[in-house]
Amino acid sequence: MESSSAPNPQSPTTTNMSLFDKHQPQLQRAIKAIQERQFYAAYPEHPKAYGEEAPKQGEDRFKNLLNQNVQNNFQGEADSHEGEEVSPYTQQPLGIKYPVYKTSHLITKSEAAFKTWRKTSAEDRAGVLIESLEKIKDHFFDIAYATMHTTGQSFMMSFQASGPHSNDRALEPIALAYQELKRFPSKVLWEKPMGKISVKLEKSYTAVPRGIGLTIGCATFPIWNTVPGIFANLMAGNTVIIKPSSKSILPLAILVSCMQNTLHENGFDPCTIQLAIVSNHLAVKQLMEDDRIKLIDYTGSSSFGDYIESLPNKITFTEKAGLNSVILDSVDDLDAVIGNLAFSVSLYSGQMCTAPQNFFIPATGVKSKDKTFTYEEVVEKLKEHLTAIATNPKTGTNVLGGLLEGTVKRIFEVMKSGKVILQPADVKSEEFANIRSSSPLLLEVSQNDHAIFEQEMFGPIAVVIKTNDTKESVRLAKEMAGKHGAITCAAYTTDQDTRNLIAEEMQEVFTPVTFNLTGPIWVNQHAAFSDFHVTGGNKAGNASFTNPEFVIKRFVWVGNRSMV
Amino acid sequence: MESSSAPNPQSPTTTNMSLFDKHQPQLQRAIKAIQERQFYAAYPEHPKAYGEEAPKQGEDRFKNLLNQNVQNNFQGEADSHEGEEVSPYTQQPLGIKYPVYKTSHLITKSEAAFKTWRKTSAEDRAGVLIESLEKIKDHFFDIAYATMHTTGQSFMMSFQASGPHSNDRALEPIALAYQELKRFPSKVLWEKPMGKISVKLEKSYTAVPRGIGLTIGCATFPIWNTVPGIFANLMAGNTVIIKPSSKSILPLAILVSCMQNTLHENGFDPCTIQLAIVSNHLAVKQLMEDDRIKLIDYTGSSSFGDYIESLPNKITFTEKAGLNSVILDSVDDLDAVIGNLAFSVSLYSGQMCTAPQNFFIPATGVKSKDKTFTYEEVVEKLKEHLTAIATNPKTGTNVLGGLLEGTVKRIFEVMKSGKVILQPADVKSEEFANIRSSSPLLLEVSQNDHAIFEQEMFGPIAVVIKTNDTKESVRLAKEMAGKHGAITCAAYTTDQDTRNLIAEEMQEVFTPVTFNLTGPIWVNQHAAFSDFHVTGGNKAGNASFTNPEFVIKRFVWVGNRSMV
Repeated sequence: MESSSAPNPQSPTTTNMSLFDKHQPQLQRAIKAIQERQFYAAYPEHPKAYGEEAPKQGEDRFKNLLNQNVQNNFQGEADSHEGEEVSPYTQQPLGIKYPVYKTSHLITKSEAAFKTWRKTSAEDRAGVLIESLEKIKDHFFDIAYATMHTTGQSFMMSFQASGPHSNDRALEPIALAYQELKRFPSKVLWEKPMGKISVKLEKSYTAVPRGIGLTIGCATFPIWNTVPGIFANLMAGNTVIIKPSSKSILPLAILVSCMQNTLHENGFDPCTIQLAIVSNHLAVKQLMEDDRIKLIDYTGSSSFGDYIESLPNKITFTEKAGLNSVILDSVDDLDAVIGNLAFSVSLYSGQMCTAPQNFFIPATGVKSKDKTFTYEEVVEKLKEHLTAIATNPKTGTNVLGGLLEGTVKRIFEVMKSGKVILQPADVKSEEFANIRSSSPLLLEVSQNDHAIFEQEMFGPIAVVIKTNDTKESVRLAKEMAGKHGAITCAAYTTDQDTRNLIAEEMQEVFTPVTFNLTGPIWVNQHAAFSDFHVTGGNKAGNASFTNPEFVIKRFVWVGNRSMV
Repeated sequence: MESSSAPNPQSPTTTNMSLFDKHQPQLQRAIKAIQERQFYAAYPEHPKAYGEEAPKQGEDRFKNLLNQNVQNNFQGEADSHEGEEVSPYTQQPLGIKYPVYKTSHLITKSEAAFKTWRKTSAEDRAGVLIESLEKIKDHFFDIAYATMHTTGQSFMMSFQASGPHSNDRALEPIALAYQELKRFPSKVLWEKPMGKISVKLEKSYTAVPRGIGLTIGCATFPIWNTVPGIFANLMAGNTVIIKPSSKSILPLAILVSCMQNTLHENGFDPCTIQLAIVSNHLAVKQLMEDDRIKLIDYTGSSSFGDYIESLPNKITFTEKAGLNSVILDSVDDLDAVIGNLAFSVSLYSGQMCTAPQNFFIPATGVKSKDKTFTYEEVVEKLKEHLTAIATNPKTGTNVLGGLLEGTVKRIFEVMKSGKVILQPADVKSEEFANIRSSSPLLLEVSQNDHAIFEQEMFGPIAVVIKTNDTKESVRLAKEMAGKHGAITCAAYTTDQDTRNLIAEEMQEVFTPVTFNLTGPIWVNQHAAFSDFHVTGGNKAGNASFTNPEFVIKRFVWVGNRSMV
């Protein structure tokens, strides 16, 4: 009978321990951070940490990419080249055309890569994936400019969100998946005593990857929202095809290029990850419904997300829309509070899934340390703070950034549906005369105008709703999150019972609450290694960055047994 | 602002540490066993371990339950009483009528129980749930008789599968869920350095249960197949409603009674778990589709399982049908091999989701140490061993057990579809003159008769398929598992390359392979704490007893933040 000392044939093998050894300290720090959920930044968020030369180098690289046909030798010869990106800062096309392939071509390449990638050990995968993060780090600034001129994010946000924060959010699933892949022994001798005799079985346990994963990117956060799923899939042994938003391809094209080169340089098939520029909607649907696509990671609208979740025989990870509420009850310092919230609304013009939208303010006003502010005073203060951010040249478009085309339309559609407290206006930029931008629209609607505040109004739009009291605010915030999902909730109260009530009620609809935030930190921000981004429990999405479910659904434990 | 030393209001609280302390050693042993995947039996499988009095006491209790209307004071007054169970051993009705409730009544009770159960700490939940396993242990023998006279299992299987093996399989998700619930700290102080200042947030992490879980039991293994989901749900903080198969209610009625009493005695709402006798199919569908049912655990047919998996906004755990293959390539001792396989087919008349069905045997025969057996000789040997088990009074119905009514029909339907190698015949029992039983049907079909061997033929039915060679056997076994799912695969080969091929090919369709099993252990058996039952990766089901996914999908991590 077979020798029991033979290697477990169905277990992946390791070929390059040196890459793993090089990055193991980083991996272990990440595992520790995830476990402890303390502050950790594997990649510093300040641009200065990357050297004096880096920003200029990145800008040059970005400029060299403009008005070109991109080639991708790894993915083969393209059928055609397409591209329609427009900079919200200049309103001019970037002029970049990307190679277009048939979906069958991409899937065939991915299947071929899967044959070897699935047998690559967790150590090898972790090694080369963290190595690819190092390569991406060298391109943080070109990715930043690419992000800025596709999404409209400010330069600083483009840098941080697509650079260090994304690398952190990519390292997180690498570390968590590594831990899970190593959770059970690969081989054990199992011995069952049966009276005078005993039965011995040799058992092996293998984490078997599911197959090809499709990642569908969004226009606003092409990198930040896609890397968790990409790296979770790759770490689990799945191959990846990325379908970016046609509005924001370039950041992902740079990222994929970094990763393909890193794979190639280290002896792996570069088509383990591929970029799919798909020429029409039918082809996207075809790609998603293809039997060989086993997993889909998606960020985007709820209607399309619901369709993806309904696809049979797919493992899906979605981040859709939600209705984020602000509950104002009582505060220490109202200016500090409203200043913080106005910034949250203004940051990237509210084009964030975490931005607050519905402000529930009691008719009885908001108590502060010194006085009770009337409802009208609170609304007035919000208006003032929003105006101050938009009109101060130091903040202005540096905070608001530029708008995607669809966002502009939405502002004007929404304006008709309530009482306009603050009229949106163009915001000028000294550097970009043609920037597509707008100061926020502040709308007031009645607590009975459900049809209005029950919609997600993605963009620089905040809605004030006068409620009878905080209990009603909580009831409405909970109702919205329960019916439509929510990713954040910002609550302000100095009363412990009210705080408990808010926490408990929002927890029933799986919505995280951030209490009493002031100063230079905002409800919009979810920190890698510490905050779960989207809980996965309500209609805002079924996935969470990065809880254990996000990684373990990507592979299957298969145990074999053998008589000894 | 709020005091940071106040208890985390949304975290569950512990009320009874003594129950946890009592059972913590057991919990820790289970956690260790799961981690190491070594042999472990928390509840010994031999009846003698439970004392001399226990069997008789259990039998008396069982007899006292017959021909009665069952009352359930905890669940309230019933609308009516129904029951239609028939013993396969006597073919007589048990005469037990169970209380029937409207689904809305059960859901309302479950919602009320959820309000407190969700806030019960992991320690309290583990304590009372393991305590309930102790109570169940005291009823192993009445549960065994109830299982025997509903499912038709032999007494020994009824005892082991519904008793100690089930308690082990229940303890497993308790332990794994406990570990996962404790995975992250409930509270941390997070401090982000920002140059000269730092931002401090107090963060809390709560594992929030999803709501009411519905468990749908099957006729053949009412306890073994339901307890993993029941205990996983309860441990995660969800409440449970169990809808048993109308053919096998009594074992679950006893189990639920034990659990309700344990909950009640320890100050918990007994309706945290409830038994739902539902009067018609429409009511079952209504129950499953109710918005307030958040999770469904299901064992049964593939068609109904596919429907359950397609229900929107539900977390589902299914075990459906599969096509289990035997691949015969080469052996040491053919008699030992065929003896083992014939027992696997005969055990409980193949009414097990793990029983082998399709025997792929090469036309070139099967090599053994001494000689090569022709295809015909191998088939003949299988026929002989099956006949020997059925006709020997020491084995006979003690191995085959009794048949469910549907199984008898199936044997006669299937007989028409191939060449009958072994004709099924009545098997006599000295103890039960009226037993509904049959010796196995052995059928031979061509490798081209896909339409026949692509069906799951649940029951004492084995199909022999002559293949060109082992490669073709592997190809067919893989194809069947890929298209229809598989829960087990028994393979026999003394050649390492062939072994590697089988392992790799079957792994691609997420099917565990058991190699070269002989002696007193069978492919049908999956051991708690060590074997994953169903991988969750193919169409045989989306859930696995008990991998981490089986527990973590039942709750949601919600993190709150608060300014310090």
